[in-house]
Amino acid sequence: MQELIKDLVVKTDSKIILVVLDGLGGLPMADGPYKGKTELEAANTPNMDRLAAGGACGLHVPVALGITPGSGPGHLSLFGYDPLKCLIGRGILEAVGLGMEVKNTDVAVRCNYATIEKGIIKDRRAGRPPTDESRKLTERLQKEIPKIDEAELMFGQGIEHRFAVVMRFPEPLPPASSAINDTDPQKTGQPPLRPVPAAPQAEEVARVAEKLISKAAEILKDEKTANYILLRGFSELPHMPTFHEAYGLRGLAVANYPMYRGLARLIGMDAPPVEGDIEEEINFLAANYGEYDFFFMHVKKVDSYGEDGNFEGKMKKIEEFDSMLPKMLELNPDVLIITGDHSTPALLKGHSWHPVPVAIKSPYVLGGMCKGFHERECTKGELGIFPTISLMPLALANAGRLKKYGA
Amino acid sequence: MQELIKDLVVKTDSKIILVVLDGLGGLPMADGPYKGKTELEAANTPNMDRLAAGGACGLHVPVALGITPGSGPGHLSLFGYDPLKCLIGRGILEAVGLGMEVKNTDVAVRCNYATIEKGIIKDRRAGRPPTDESRKLTERLQKEIPKIDEAELMFGQGIEHRFAVVMRFPEPLPPASSAINDTDPQKTGQPPLRPVPAAPQAEEVARVAEKLISKAAEILKDEKTANYILLRGFSELPHMPTFHEAYGLRGLAVANYPMYRGLARLIGMDAPPVEGDIEEEINFLAANYGEYDFFFMHVKKVDSYGEDGNFEGKMKKIEEFDSMLPKMLELNPDVLIITGDHSTPALLKGHSWHPVPVAIKSPYVLGGMCKGFHERECTKGELGIFPTISLMPLALANAGRLKKYGA
Repeated sequence: MQELIKDLVVKTDSKIILVVLDGLGGLPMADGPYKGKTELEAANTPNMDRLAAGGACGLHVPVALGITPGSGPGHLSLFGYDPLKCLIGRGILEAVGLGMEVKNTDVAVRCNYATIEKGIIKDRRAGRPPTDESRKLTERLQKEIPKIDEAELMFGQGIEHRFAVVMRFPEPLPPASSAINDTDPQKTGQPPLRPVPAAPQAEEVARVAEKLISKAAEILKDEKTANYILLRGFSELPHMPTFHEAYGLRGLAVANYPMYRGLARLIGMDAPPVEGDIEEEINFLAANYGEYDFFFMHVKKVDSYGEDGNFEGKMKKIEEFDSMLPKMLELNPDVLIITGDHSTPALLKGHSWHPVPVAIKSPYVLGGMCKGFHERECTKGELGIFPTISLMPLALANAGRLKKYGA
Repeated sequence: MQELIKDLVVKTDSKIILVVLDGLGGLPMADGPYKGKTELEAANTPNMDRLAAGGACGLHVPVALGITPGSGPGHLSLFGYDPLKCLIGRGILEAVGLGMEVKNTDVAVRCNYATIEKGIIKDRRAGRPPTDESRKLTERLQKEIPKIDEAELMFGQGIEHRFAVVMRFPEPLPPASSAINDTDPQKTGQPPLRPVPAAPQAEEVARVAEKLISKAAEILKDEKTANYILLRGFSELPHMPTFHEAYGLRGLAVANYPMYRGLARLIGMDAPPVEGDIEEEINFLAANYGEYDFFFMHVKKVDSYGEDGNFEGKMKKIEEFDSMLPKMLELNPDVLIITGDHSTPALLKGHSWHPVPVAIKSPYVLGGMCKGFHERECTKGELGIFPTISLMPLALANAGRLKKYGA
């Protein structure tokens, strides 16, 4: 499908804004003050309701019915990439979440500090050391192991025992260069596993990993707990076209969390750091409005409250965005899409498989199908229930950026 | 899917009528007397409304969400052929639109008269000569170049500088026989390109094309403007089963425009010429009702008014069909389908990507879901939003022509 789209794309001056309220979709609460209502239904959202009433609404399915997407597949689908073919590996997602750059010359790995005794793992998380202590160790590793063989090494500290390593090779890597097993056996009382290449193309990366493990063990050998490292989620960039190659769009990501800027950068969008929250993001978008064709604006906290099971917090964050929507409408984009990357019902305290509500504002819609912007009304919308990867073609069509297929 | 259908098809005496109101789907106007209404909503269509209320309704997607189909993909989808796999080339569509026959032994090419001076193209359209003048040249070419090597040549005059050539070879052609570049460089001030075969199977066709170009240049050399020909859209028939092979149906196309008769003939339907408009088409259908199982009746002008941005013209054409629907119902077909091949909103003055309303009359539907026949009511229908290629299986099923799959 992306091949077809690429052939049909035309360039115009039209502007598309995609607002992702992370984890937007919800479920009705079983009791309490909001009994029977979803977060979107309980929220007072006059501006989004008006937009939904005049726009095209529906619900989209990020991966497949019943499948709960992570942030990677959720966003790739929104950007029109098949989430089953373009899987972002754990190592890359971790590195990207820490604000590290990952290129097509790189393999990224997720690492843990661990405790080892006579070759046997005692604690897979080294007693969950405070992040500040781990950071000192990670900085030491960075200083003492800047390079192994041909690979330049970049270390990034995560939370507690977690860190990431990006190995940068001189040339773009062939597919399956990172086909290497985790060294974490997932159990204590066992020796760590060796990083074994599953394909000839992965041999060089495995050699670097093996040397990294032994060098780190040597450097850390006098640490009480964090005296070893475990590696998992070896991954390389999926081979996929950039956003610009795929759609001819100059894309800007406006996101205050590194993870989402990183995801956007993986497909070549510009994603400079943004401070603050919704208001600052809208200001940032407005300040850069002239320079881009496509704007991905990400609001993280809707999901965070959902993950915490904080129904009211999620509801209020949605209301906060709604109150600032008029400012965004002043930009008068040709196409404005409001949706999420997946559902995160407070009821479930986590991501869920439920289709995600979406509203598209454009002059070329039927409209008049939904009374407000929430899950139940969206099922009455003109878009029906559709795969998330169809959202980009719809956005391009509404923006006049796709020519006719066949004569 | 077509493989599966072929295995399940059974023969009965049931009759299916598919009415294609070309470009049927529309969009609400932003202002004016019909503000907020689509063409179908504004039209007074008591007969279609009754049919929709008692029938199965929905909206179908010809190619994919966001993709605007041409007439070729739109109709192939209606006939149950995957429009991404069975693409009708430009040359064939041009030839077919001029009423020329195209068989599996043929390569069709779209041609322009052009002006050339010392080997350089001065005008790619030879100053857009009047059609009558071009026709004389085309008739001369036909007379003087009836055959090149093994290929019989058929010329068909189009509008102004346009004409088509069908090269007919003695044997059915293998795939990629027409893999040849356009000779039109798309710019003036450059020499024409040579027709270069991109595959060994295309060498013979390229040789014929090369000789055609030089013979035509010789014949036209004393013309002031139209002294050269440019070739593009070399194409052969896609390799696909006939309508009868696919469904066991004897199909009749009832269409007053050559293009749509030609599209039907490409899959082996009978498609004799029909004069007049809707009333004459219905009479023609009725007169041939005993001889066929499946009737494709095409109403072109609904689309033509849409393309012109003539909302009221499109609306009235829809009303005209509606007023004659009772006459068609007198035939009492087992299955009657009313739909379009794509949307052509007057608002957009062209084909669009919007799903196309459809109503199926059959004894085996739920019914009672829609109050009338238009886009918004159809979103409430029992068929939902579905791919156009599923329409033929639904028609066959409702006609009792598909047996159970598996035990």
